[in-house]
Amino acid sequence: MRKINRLVVIGVGLIGGSFALALRKAKAVGHVTGVGRTRRNLAVALRRGVIDAVATDPARAVREADMVFLGTPVGQMGAVMAAIGPHLPAHVVVTDGGSTKRDVIATARRVLGPAFSRFVPAHPIAGTEESGAAAAFPELYRGRNLVLVPQRETAADALRRVTLAWKACGAVIVRMDADTHDRTLGAVSHLPHVVSYALMGMLARQPGARRLLAFSGGGLRDTVRIAGSSPEMWRDICIANRGALLELLDAYAGELDRARDAIDRGDGEALQALFAHARAARARWLVKSRA
Amino acid sequence: MRKINRLVVIGVGLIGGSFALALRKAKAVGHVTGVGRTRRNLAVALRRGVIDAVATDPARAVREADMVFLGTPVGQMGAVMAAIGPHLPAHVVVTDGGSTKRDVIATARRVLGPAFSRFVPAHPIAGTEESGAAAAFPELYRGRNLVLVPQRETAADALRRVTLAWKACGAVIVRMDADTHDRTLGAVSHLPHVVSYALMGMLARQPGARRLLAFSGGGLRDTVRIAGSSPEMWRDICIANRGALLELLDAYAGELDRARDAIDRGDGEALQALFAHARAARARWLVKSRA
Repeated sequence: MRKINRLVVIGVGLIGGSFALALRKAKAVGHVTGVGRTRRNLAVALRRGVIDAVATDPARAVREADMVFLGTPVGQMGAVMAAIGPHLPAHVVVTDGGSTKRDVIATARRVLGPAFSRFVPAHPIAGTEESGAAAAFPELYRGRNLVLVPQRETAADALRRVTLAWKACGAVIVRMDADTHDRTLGAVSHLPHVVSYALMGMLARQPGARRLLAFSGGGLRDTVRIAGSSPEMWRDICIANRGALLELLDAYAGELDRARDAIDRGDGEALQALFAHARAARARWLVKSRA
Repeated sequence: MRKINRLVVIGVGLIGGSFALALRKAKAVGHVTGVGRTRRNLAVALRRGVIDAVATDPARAVREADMVFLGTPVGQMGAVMAAIGPHLPAHVVVTDGGSTKRDVIATARRVLGPAFSRFVPAHPIAGTEESGAAAAFPELYRGRNLVLVPQRETAADALRRVTLAWKACGAVIVRMDADTHDRTLGAVSHLPHVVSYALMGMLARQPGARRLLAFSGGGLRDTVRIAGSSPEMWRDICIANRGALLELLDAYAGELDRARDAIDRGDGEALQALFAHARAARARWLVKSRA
């Protein structure tokens, strides 16, 4: 691939930082500038070699870039795009790692103006419950799905350059339309986060919560692992994907109610059928995902 | 400790099998007889050296035992106790690994007759989502909490012998009353299982579920890990602990509703507060549990 001479990462967290590190490891990038809100995180990014330089003004930073990666929580994308839009050079390609796509694309179309044709919406299906530049690592994307959501306006060259960059990170490229993306990720990612946060939050509100939690096993630990995720990031995602997520939450509440009713009636057969259905679906899914 | 000469394990699954293996490893047991419903599982237990012999009739098996471990799902404890009760020798001690305690104790008090004083209710807080003798391993209990729930009738010698056996397995002994046990485990174990089964079950019912699940990440995988647990065992637990569990399910539904309302209103501040509360509670808990 053609090397990226100057990459600007706006939001140097787990996602943006790992993108930079993966490109560095693949020798696919020259100079990386990091832009962010918190000096401390940028200092960590510099020290860890995630970025080469810090910029405070995104508008100035992008002027010499040939690729700009937007790694901020989705709620900030609009403000960032508005700041950089008028200053984007003609040859630049802009891409993002936002967890929702309909809203990011709508915002970009509204805010970026003519540069919208060089914006390639994307979402790497990868992450951990850790956040910030300290958590970034170059192998995060290896073998993971990278969803590309090109629009009818997207320039072929921009799409090609972003595709090559993600391939250099080791990702598996998948194309999807924005609706399908948001419904899919709502189900397999956004909903589980709400489920997990709610379980941890509810337990914390129980009388004697500390003592209760001392008797937990590995089951609870795994079930609430993602309740360690960034509240700001997940707030933005949930609100950005509100439509799909509310439907999914209602379907989930329905499934919980079925279990509750069976427990209330002492209906062991119905309860076992619900559990067995879930267990079988999990087993089929894991066999597939290992294949 | 005085060696257990003849241990009878009724229900040679993950829990009962690991108890036998741990005692063997500690050289705290002589001969182990396994009793169970499925020949195949008992054959696995024999082959893996979990047990030395198979018995089909629990009443005969216990006649020469000096310790009997009940490792069946809690829904079967009553039938097993009724079968062995009249045949228990005078010196035997009986204990269990049942995940609920109020119902198991009530059943034992009703069914075991005079032998109730030699029944020591217990619950090891350990497990994996795997089940059966194939999943048993001797280190399962090392460093894990073992809850003892002795009753006013419990003979001191019986309590001492069961305590020593669990110490030989490497467990940390904790005493608790049955109500506290059931409320505590309802919160940190039974509820998370229902939450996890419901999430997996609901996702499996979505249109295009297979394709959806292909885009999941590690978050979902962890959140539904315990949906791989035995449906029969968890059916029994949920129904045995119905009272506590229904209250907990309602509290959980309330927490989910709070998140749903915030998402519906687009109230980022309220949603972030819920998520941040959960995240902070998880962090405090993990610091404590590592300490």
